[in-house]
Amino acid sequence: MTWSGVIREYRAHLPLSADVEPVTLFEGNTPLVEAPRLATALGVTGRVLLKYEGANPTGSFKDRGMTVAISVAAAAEARAVICASTGNTSASAAAYAARAGLRAFVVVPEGKIALGKLNQAAMHGATVVAIDGSFDAALEIVTGIAKTSNVIVVNSINPYRLQGQKTAAFEICDALGCAPDYHFLPVGNAGNITACWMGYREYRERGITDSRPQMMGFQAAGAAPLVTGNPLHNPETVATAIRIGNPASWKGAEAARDESNGVIDAVTDDEILEAYHLIASLEGIFVEPASATSVAGLKKMSLEGRIPQDMTIVCTLTGHGLKDPTTATESSPPPARAPADLERVRDILAI
Amino acid sequence: MTWSGVIREYRAHLPLSADVEPVTLFEGNTPLVEAPRLATALGVTGRVLLKYEGANPTGSFKDRGMTVAISVAAAAEARAVICASTGNTSASAAAYAARAGLRAFVVVPEGKIALGKLNQAAMHGATVVAIDGSFDAALEIVTGIAKTSNVIVVNSINPYRLQGQKTAAFEICDALGCAPDYHFLPVGNAGNITACWMGYREYRERGITDSRPQMMGFQAAGAAPLVTGNPLHNPETVATAIRIGNPASWKGAEAARDESNGVIDAVTDDEILEAYHLIASLEGIFVEPASATSVAGLKKMSLEGRIPQDMTIVCTLTGHGLKDPTTATESSPPPARAPADLERVRDILAI
Repeated sequence: MTWSGVIREYRAHLPLSADVEPVTLFEGNTPLVEAPRLATALGVTGRVLLKYEGANPTGSFKDRGMTVAISVAAAAEARAVICASTGNTSASAAAYAARAGLRAFVVVPEGKIALGKLNQAAMHGATVVAIDGSFDAALEIVTGIAKTSNVIVVNSINPYRLQGQKTAAFEICDALGCAPDYHFLPVGNAGNITACWMGYREYRERGITDSRPQMMGFQAAGAAPLVTGNPLHNPETVATAIRIGNPASWKGAEAARDESNGVIDAVTDDEILEAYHLIASLEGIFVEPASATSVAGLKKMSLEGRIPQDMTIVCTLTGHGLKDPTTATESSPPPARAPADLERVRDILAI
Repeated sequence: MTWSGVIREYRAHLPLSADVEPVTLFEGNTPLVEAPRLATALGVTGRVLLKYEGANPTGSFKDRGMTVAISVAAAAEARAVICASTGNTSASAAAYAARAGLRAFVVVPEGKIALGKLNQAAMHGATVVAIDGSFDAALEIVTGIAKTSNVIVVNSINPYRLQGQKTAAFEICDALGCAPDYHFLPVGNAGNITACWMGYREYRERGITDSRPQMMGFQAAGAAPLVTGNPLHNPETVATAIRIGNPASWKGAEAARDESNGVIDAVTDDEILEAYHLIASLEGIFVEPASATSVAGLKKMSLEGRIPQDMTIVCTLTGHGLKDPTTATESSPPPARAPADLERVRDILAI
């Protein structure tokens, strides 16, 4: 059994013309991990499953949409692609562009990108510009440049991105044999909740599933425009991947919430970091802080008594913990130090 | 199609008693990526395929063996596990121990562990001791402690580790429909080349394949005891994951070479770093430096005219580039900086 990437696996569900050759790194087919110890810690009686998107080739869910967007760009004989990014999009764009032999241009907010992600774009040969401004300012610049140049924007305003990202919902349904009752996601630019809802809707419409989950989107409290109802200029949160003040898929997220009888709410950075540690220490899955927002949201809902018993609950974990070494170092104990001596080491380990 | 982890997928090939319940993060089923642009750059006329083990849950091939070793430890009701590590083993051990609810103790050489890996062990709740000594000294301490304590060593001297790691060879054969002609691997502690050879042998013996590859192991020139024939006390290389002076599977590596009519040779750090950049910029795959040793070895053999035409060649890429942010930062250009102004950004990008 060999996985061939999300385009080949789900092509019947993607609006791609026959001439589009997949540019793939065999993204998708990510682990859906049963998390009983985490469920207990969160006070949830049902099944909690973690969809671990950090196991994608560049370490985040962005690869699902990027394989589609870059395949289409390559088929159109584009010269180059461009994106604004809080880091995961640029890492993925740079990787898939390299694979396709396309140039990649990346505009990021200076000082607001996790170290691992900045390295990825550079290693894959992208031209990276760090601007003195927010993600939202970077996105404005990118769309402005694309208007007058022969470069293709591969941010989620490129519709092929969300087409690819919806495959996460397909995989969850395929693995469970049905749709879950609840699906919790981190919400930044809001493309992922929009795309997953599209996936669930399509599987239901085609009769592959007979229900759809309630979509539960959670933002970081310092970057929660969908909760306050107002865009903000200086979003702040430890969850850099969702530090976005004016989400591109604002309306898609609201539709997902309303059509699914779902929720969009916020959690604090402290709640995010608590969930970040719980996931790693109880279930062995290391995520970047933004990813933990879904689990922090589930904990909040559980504490408020808003999760019925015996539900099947999926939490998306958007990216790998290795993406953000700085937060990991700052929030973990440093190693003990010892000479190379058996007895001294045994004393420290207390075994 | 849902992948269930290497134990459930390959249990018929693993020496596990029926009472062993898999402790899994759905490791394995990693991408086998056709690399035509890299092949051209290396002067290879045949197929070059990259087995990207960085897509495993903790970002390295170690997860294949760790799921087996930890599952056996959990079934035996062990209290704790312990390992010495250059980083990937400890990250994997800590993750799978967390998943099983076991304590993990880790002994690492101080200052010789890539940053990402140190974070992983700490985040997964392992107790980490950094000793003033080499990996080899750490392994000696670990085995000494295990002799007098009720803890299980999960280094590759634990035979279940190599049993799990051999599944990489199974996956390669399953994906290709046959064994490759050549299989290039980085060689540090030499467990991986030993395990993959075991996998190829077993598939051949059971008639699943009708041939076996030549096993091509490459060490870093500063840590090449299998090439020089002598253990060394102070191995040095940028490829920290294979900075090992006295490989535990020394004899296994030699047997793999001799039985397969293969090669064990060394490449310099410069050659490793060149391959590291080629893989990322030509094929969109970001690896840690040690992983690039296999590709550097293929380049060396190709330049020497020792690779026949039209062969099928697999190179193992052992770990994700995000494991070692320091080397990535030091060997990549920093981003250009600009104000949040469209024209200034356009000028820098020259588009």
